[in-house]
Amino acid sequence: MRKVYLDHMSTTPTDPRVVKEMLPFFTENFGNPSSHLHEYGLKAKKAVDESRAKVADLINVKPDEIIFTFTGSEANNLALRGLALANKNKGKHIIISEIEHFSILYTARELEKEGFRVSYLKVNKDGLVDTDDVAKTITKDTILISIMHANNEIGIIEPIKEIGKITKEKDVIFHTDAIATAGIIPVDVSELGVDSLSTTSQSFYGPKGIAALYLREGIDIVSIMKGGAQEGGRRPGTDNIPGIVGMGKAAELAKIEMKSRIERLIPLRDKLIKELPNRIKYLHFTGHLTKRLPGHVSFWISFAEGESLVLFLNYNGIAIASGSACSSPDLQASHVLTAIGVPPDVCHGSITVSLGKDNTEEDVDYFWTHYQR
Amino acid sequence: MRKVYLDHMSTTPTDPRVVKEMLPFFTENFGNPSSHLHEYGLKAKKAVDESRAKVADLINVKPDEIIFTFTGSEANNLALRGLALANKNKGKHIIISEIEHFSILYTARELEKEGFRVSYLKVNKDGLVDTDDVAKTITKDTILISIMHANNEIGIIEPIKEIGKITKEKDVIFHTDAIATAGIIPVDVSELGVDSLSTTSQSFYGPKGIAALYLREGIDIVSIMKGGAQEGGRRPGTDNIPGIVGMGKAAELAKIEMKSRIERLIPLRDKLIKELPNRIKYLHFTGHLTKRLPGHVSFWISFAEGESLVLFLNYNGIAIASGSACSSPDLQASHVLTAIGVPPDVCHGSITVSLGKDNTEEDVDYFWTHYQR
Repeated sequence: MRKVYLDHMSTTPTDPRVVKEMLPFFTENFGNPSSHLHEYGLKAKKAVDESRAKVADLINVKPDEIIFTFTGSEANNLALRGLALANKNKGKHIIISEIEHFSILYTARELEKEGFRVSYLKVNKDGLVDTDDVAKTITKDTILISIMHANNEIGIIEPIKEIGKITKEKDVIFHTDAIATAGIIPVDVSELGVDSLSTTSQSFYGPKGIAALYLREGIDIVSIMKGGAQEGGRRPGTDNIPGIVGMGKAAELAKIEMKSRIERLIPLRDKLIKELPNRIKYLHFTGHLTKRLPGHVSFWISFAEGESLVLFLNYNGIAIASGSACSSPDLQASHVLTAIGVPPDVCHGSITVSLGKDNTEEDVDYFWTHYQR
Repeated sequence: MRKVYLDHMSTTPTDPRVVKEMLPFFTENFGNPSSHLHEYGLKAKKAVDESRAKVADLINVKPDEIIFTFTGSEANNLALRGLALANKNKGKHIIISEIEHFSILYTARELEKEGFRVSYLKVNKDGLVDTDDVAKTITKDTILISIMHANNEIGIIEPIKEIGKITKEKDVIFHTDAIATAGIIPVDVSELGVDSLSTTSQSFYGPKGIAALYLREGIDIVSIMKGGAQEGGRRPGTDNIPGIVGMGKAAELAKIEMKSRIERLIPLRDKLIKELPNRIKYLHFTGHLTKRLPGHVSFWISFAEGESLVLFLNYNGIAIASGSACSSPDLQASHVLTAIGVPPDVCHGSITVSLGKDNTEEDVDYFWTHYQR
């Protein structure tokens, strides 16, 4: 049976070129970079430095501004909690959008319990944050704003650059969760004007178990873990060296191949957007139709259960996601879909099709052929 | 030039059999277990379940009692902070030994700032905690005790089983940092009587970037990060699937081969302990000479600088550690060596030789031949 993987927002396969680069760091150059008085540790340290430079280059920042973490969730936790705690004497007000990932949303709720005040910005029916809302919500007490660059469920790309201008003017720290964008579409920190940005290797054909937080030079952060001096003490614990090497290689490849990947993906995405309504009755797209990720199509279908569709397509070798695939701890309807006005009873049943760099037109055709059965 | 790696306490090479097991999970079975409605995610979920059982089996606990983390430091942070916060209504007193790893020591200091009271148990000149001290230090307000199973710098194995009897009797939660023991010497949780235990894959020829916390069924813990439902919400963030698979395989191999590994290592260690004083003047061993890890020898030398020795041996292809190799954020003399009474001016200069399963008698001979030059 043909296999068609269309769930790249959930995770991507690791590029074989990336795995090849990682391999020597398991068995041969296996040292701990904290033990850099001998050759084994020194080689590991050098590899970490090189990868840090590659990840920094992908988003146009300085290598020293990259803090390696293990997951994007950890990077988001560190950013939101760490920046809130480091700035609590300046103010207690935080602003986030209501469609943030759980790692931001639940950290914000936790900070509320600890005495911070959080404003949750609404989005319109396309999923877009209103920049005027951002400006209006900032008070003298506001220390931190966190708006995601793109949303994994509905593919929408938020106006980060415009928000960045506002936060700069108002002197508020601006974090963006770029887990769905960095390595996929151009992410240039100097252009976006953010102070902090999270990214994960598994989004762009790097290995799982490694991610990074960009933090602008000079900005203080409180670490969420205590221990050794790794990552300047901001993220203690032995580095995942093969993972770091893999993320570096994946970042390098993403930078080189990004343009051609996007140019291949957009026509496939737009073919789906054009053809799907002709083939599936009662289909409703979610998220803005053009201000969205290159390979991302999302929708819901009246009278159809998303999870059943995912299961049905799986029997035909096709992997897609339902809105609830991202593991919600409370198993409630997706807060993202509720936010854009999808009726709560269908919020369990939405579909996300996310194409990757190796998908072909035949994959797309195979998908809807089986969808129609 | 011959290469002799004698720094296994810092990290171990990943066993090629482990790497082989991991490989399909990068490029082929690369799914995200949170997306288990399709085959890719389901295969990943199954692999996680199988590895969880193998790690549980290594320390004789139930699979559901294993929480995967990314580093041993993270497991220690989660244990100490998470258990303290979950039990703060029962009491505010915590007991740790003064030779704990930074991830325990600095978390304890942080908890002190947050209103907890911490007692730091002294060790004797051999590095051993006095079990009577443990019993005497427990008050009605004590909620948590953390004593490491073995110390990485001085190799000493603490009387965890005896302490476990006391904590059980006094109804105090007992955590042990078993990062230097699990997968190396027998660690049977039911025998040790601990409630919580941290272990890391890189200690026993598994990959870096994956570790685990054992937590006894029924014990509550507060997670140190917020996000998705992974690991029952106790450690959110996308799982490092190849890492988990690798840790499982390494645990399986460690269980099978442990006896023969130890039987090979103890004579090599004891040869070093017997011969070194004859070959090196002014040598002083640290840690008890028999209540210690199988491949572990540690010492300091009057009038010699540890770091210089490490560098010198490195030119001859030999990797060992100086006392300061474990990255102290404050670059102070090792708190472990200070605790056992080593004069502060030599605390930078101690040596740890840690043998691994693949070291040979020739390696040991090569080591001291070059040591003498």
